[in-house]
Amino acid sequence: MTTILISGLGLIGSSMARVMKQSAAELTLLGDDPNDDTAQFLLDQGIIDERVTLLDAANRADIILLAGPVSVIIKQLKQLANVLLKPNVLVTDVGSSKTQVMAAAKDLENRQIAFMGGHPMAGSHQTGAHAGRKHLFDHATYFLVNGTQTTAQTKSFQALLATADLRWTTVSAAEHDALVSSISHVPHVLAANLVNTAAQQLRHDPVGLSAAAGGFKSTTRIAASDPRMWTAIMLSNADVISDQLTTYIDQLKLIQAAIKSRDADQIRHFFERAKAIREQLDHDDSRGK
Amino acid sequence: MTTILISGLGLIGSSMARVMKQSAAELTLLGDDPNDDTAQFLLDQGIIDERVTLLDAANRADIILLAGPVSVIIKQLKQLANVLLKPNVLVTDVGSSKTQVMAAAKDLENRQIAFMGGHPMAGSHQTGAHAGRKHLFDHATYFLVNGTQTTAQTKSFQALLATADLRWTTVSAAEHDALVSSISHVPHVLAANLVNTAAQQLRHDPVGLSAAAGGFKSTTRIAASDPRMWTAIMLSNADVISDQLTTYIDQLKLIQAAIKSRDADQIRHFFERAKAIREQLDHDDSRGK
Repeated sequence: MTTILISGLGLIGSSMARVMKQSAAELTLLGDDPNDDTAQFLLDQGIIDERVTLLDAANRADIILLAGPVSVIIKQLKQLANVLLKPNVLVTDVGSSKTQVMAAAKDLENRQIAFMGGHPMAGSHQTGAHAGRKHLFDHATYFLVNGTQTTAQTKSFQALLATADLRWTTVSAAEHDALVSSISHVPHVLAANLVNTAAQQLRHDPVGLSAAAGGFKSTTRIAASDPRMWTAIMLSNADVISDQLTTYIDQLKLIQAAIKSRDADQIRHFFERAKAIREQLDHDDSRGK
Repeated sequence: MTTILISGLGLIGSSMARVMKQSAAELTLLGDDPNDDTAQFLLDQGIIDERVTLLDAANRADIILLAGPVSVIIKQLKQLANVLLKPNVLVTDVGSSKTQVMAAAKDLENRQIAFMGGHPMAGSHQTGAHAGRKHLFDHATYFLVNGTQTTAQTKSFQALLATADLRWTTVSAAEHDALVSSISHVPHVLAANLVNTAAQQLRHDPVGLSAAAGGFKSTTRIAASDPRMWTAIMLSNADVISDQLTTYIDQLKLIQAAIKSRDADQIRHFFERAKAIREQLDHDDSRGK
């Protein structure tokens, strides 16, 4: 019988609990969340077996999964270094940036506690336990950053999520943070900035944003994501995001200059390149790669 | 019996033909498109009644609808000023920018031919007659820019599209171009630039874009739009788009500075504002406004 403790039962944590509950292993699922309604809902649904608090129940767990905002994960890793844990416990997380998380796990690792960084590439502009679902991660990339875990621990963790058919991908923390900044963190900043700037520009226009068609809506859907979570992500990967924004702005100025000077060839090439790359992404997807 | 001539039978033109075909009016639909397969497909489907060329058939039409790229519309408006037309004909268009189009219609208007600018706010990253459908415009905003048309001509045009339940919105050409730049033209530039920059940044990363989750995909879906059409749009509204990009970049630098200096309050406020605006947009939509 494996005992799993998940701290943070929002969209990601509660969805992981749902996936684990249908794995082959017999397991007890302990859940920690500051929100009473969330905890009660998951108890009522049979998704967690018992509500606990992380530090009180940590010594009962074979696997501790930290699924709160990155700022909370970092705090919890330091707290866990000061409590008694099972000798073979695996501590892991789902935080959206990894360099700071891996650094925060050092105290724990110095105590010979196994830590493995993790990050499932799934999410939604929706938040909370009610929005969680067992298919949220199906076929998604799940990044692993090797810490001090054993191969056996990695495998038993992966087995708990087997039904999601994940694409397990091991990367360094630095590679992870650059990659995820490119495909997730920076896009969130751009989408939110587009919404804010468009609203500002149209503040005196009686028609305004209401005329927006599907293109604007899909492009800005992620701007409705949880502000607290995304603030924590920005703070945890600030330098990488800021550097990439500089590159993005430089590129944007190039195409802006081409538009201003009516350089049809350069504009068309810019759109042709984007179309080819974006279509390749859908093509790879449809082949299940 | 009303005779309608549509020039340009891509996504928009062929969808408008589909909508008109189910209107109450008895009408003959003449279609002009340089692509033989497109024309034959629409003839086979009964969506157009006859394939013609614009200048040869223009004198048979009660309504002439120009639905090609903006650059083609501008050329055609000048050509139409030099051919015989029915005295009561209404010439209109669906171009994505209006200042240049209204200017190009001046010769026609000087000949006492009625022109009305138009722009349905619907579209897709898909293109072509096969992707067209009669529900493409349902409940969408349809911008009208008054030219020299009579009220009766406006009403008879609107009646042809009655089944789409459009939100008819009359604006000036300048207001249209600023508004549409904000909610469509600039977002297209940003999405394409995101795809190109991310691909460039990840060119040496073996994982790369393939790890992108739904957020990146929805944010960049419009980057797969037709490069030729979007190049024409950029050229036709270049100054407005370029000016708005300057504002967008200025705003982006502000949030970049907040991220770099780890200003949690400012970052959270930025995301909170975007979330509130973006959710209002969905809320307005669900109320059918």
